[in-house]
Amino acid sequence: MNKIAIAIHGGAGTITRSDMTAELEREYLGGLENSLKAGWEILRKNGSSLDAVEAAVVALENFPLFNAGRGAVFTNEGTNELDASIMNGINLAAGAVAFVKNIVNPISLARLVMEKTEHILLAGDGAEQFARQMNVESANDAYFFTEHRYRQLLEAQAAGKVQLDHAKLTENDQRKTENEIQNSKSKIQNPIGTVGAVACDAFGNLAAATSTGGMTNKKFGRVGDTPVIGAGTYADNRTCAVSCTGHGEFFMKTLAAYDVAARMKYKNLSLGAAANEVIEDLFAIGGEGGLIAVNALGNIALPFNSDGMYRGFVTSDGAMNVEIYR
Amino acid sequence: MNKIAIAIHGGAGTITRSDMTAELEREYLGGLENSLKAGWEILRKNGSSLDAVEAAVVALENFPLFNAGRGAVFTNEGTNELDASIMNGINLAAGAVAFVKNIVNPISLARLVMEKTEHILLAGDGAEQFARQMNVESANDAYFFTEHRYRQLLEAQAAGKVQLDHAKLTENDQRKTENEIQNSKSKIQNPIGTVGAVACDAFGNLAAATSTGGMTNKKFGRVGDTPVIGAGTYADNRTCAVSCTGHGEFFMKTLAAYDVAARMKYKNLSLGAAANEVIEDLFAIGGEGGLIAVNALGNIALPFNSDGMYRGFVTSDGAMNVEIYR
Repeated sequence: MNKIAIAIHGGAGTITRSDMTAELEREYLGGLENSLKAGWEILRKNGSSLDAVEAAVVALENFPLFNAGRGAVFTNEGTNELDASIMNGINLAAGAVAFVKNIVNPISLARLVMEKTEHILLAGDGAEQFARQMNVESANDAYFFTEHRYRQLLEAQAAGKVQLDHAKLTENDQRKTENEIQNSKSKIQNPIGTVGAVACDAFGNLAAATSTGGMTNKKFGRVGDTPVIGAGTYADNRTCAVSCTGHGEFFMKTLAAYDVAARMKYKNLSLGAAANEVIEDLFAIGGEGGLIAVNALGNIALPFNSDGMYRGFVTSDGAMNVEIYR
Repeated sequence: MNKIAIAIHGGAGTITRSDMTAELEREYLGGLENSLKAGWEILRKNGSSLDAVEAAVVALENFPLFNAGRGAVFTNEGTNELDASIMNGINLAAGAVAFVKNIVNPISLARLVMEKTEHILLAGDGAEQFARQMNVESANDAYFFTEHRYRQLLEAQAAGKVQLDHAKLTENDQRKTENEIQNSKSKIQNPIGTVGAVACDAFGNLAAATSTGGMTNKKFGRVGDTPVIGAGTYADNRTCAVSCTGHGEFFMKTLAAYDVAARMKYKNLSLGAAANEVIEDLFAIGGEGGLIAVNALGNIALPFNSDGMYRGFVTSDGAMNVEIYR
């Protein structure tokens, strides 16, 4: 049998020990461990990588501290809009949803798009209509209301700022008009706020899944990299499975997830070298974030160029590793 | 000065001489020529490739026979939902819109997303709200009503079929239930229906633009490859500018537009060889369509694996070439 492996992330950005309490740190690490266990249990019993990444992301979506599913940030209108995507490395089948509301587990809806339609990406009202046809679990707005997210929205609105999750407001930002901030990319610091999983199962099959609540105070139906196959998520048995997190637009223009696979295929790089190059190139154009990747030998890579990335992995030795800081 | 070049397409699929009248053929060729002229005039006067591809696509969007802008096909609800994207090879800046309604030139709205926001992709109501803020030209539904497109919707609905533009209904299709067709990829034949342009200007800068009305009778907010950077559109001065057309889902899972650039960067292939490989690989997994590509030396490639592709190009000799069939 093939060596099994799973890696997960809960977002990357400015995550420093000084901003963290011991209690909050324990909560985060517990959330990561629960997700890893959910995925690992499936892999260990010779389940599929697709089932494992879905289960791991479902656990992260249900955990209120990560920006996906229940813990999603609020848009400018005070709603929670959710994006997710999943890809099967066996046959390049993929499914994704963009800005759906009230769906408890967007990643499972993305999987249904992959398995029950001939499409890859469904968005908005249409995707919700599809969810109702599929009897996907939904919840009212109260389920998605988390105090800390709502406070972030009020703070962002007070500053007139479109914010990635966990972006901090400086005194300088407070003085900016919304328009100035809109036109100045550098004002959005510390991107964070996606969850994801990649896995290799006992049959050497790869899968990747990513889910997010987007950016605090976002407007205009902005779609980031998470529901874009090749940007936020990619899986191909011949190369690797990848899930990204960070400032989405940079991952979109560099096709970061697919680019790891492309460098393996066309440059014959190892998984680790390909993943590192992609994160270095991202940094070179000002993009902050990280990715998790696995290949069909059960090797993993978790590079990031931010201060921290909520992350965890289990490889063939069965030892569980969860980390936050650099 | 650099050698200038522009290439355009008006969709790929089953386009055969036997289905065409001489009059219709003249109309199509005239539409292609008008678009080429609009772009070429800009390049000839040392204008930018970005302005050239926008002008060429605006002309294609305004021409009622191509499936973009005015000539867009109808959705299941009898509406016209438009997608477009544009990318600047100088700095990898990109802009895109997905399922916007009543926008006369979605490609110009995509350019505003690129230039006036820090985002890449805006969708639905939010994108329309942004369009109003930018005072982008809109038109009522009557402007987008074209007799032949509405007939296609009625035919598709009678057959319970989600259709790519120009897909033909066979007697066999008529007997299928919608569900059977939904689950059988092979039933959707003859994909066609995007417009696009790529250009290299006198300064060696590359740009790409793509626009579409999607699929006849489409449901559930399906988003295809056109507004996805790397799938339908890509531009990078260091490699090439690419615009794709065909069965969108195949271009999405293979990242077809970016993949041409990746094969040039990482495998050191020529533009022509890279473009051909991408279309061959697409065919190998059952994907039908084509692409247009240009590099910074003013070379072009226009490979397709379908019966025909509405296409045209002008390179440094200034001669205008427009073609339809293989």
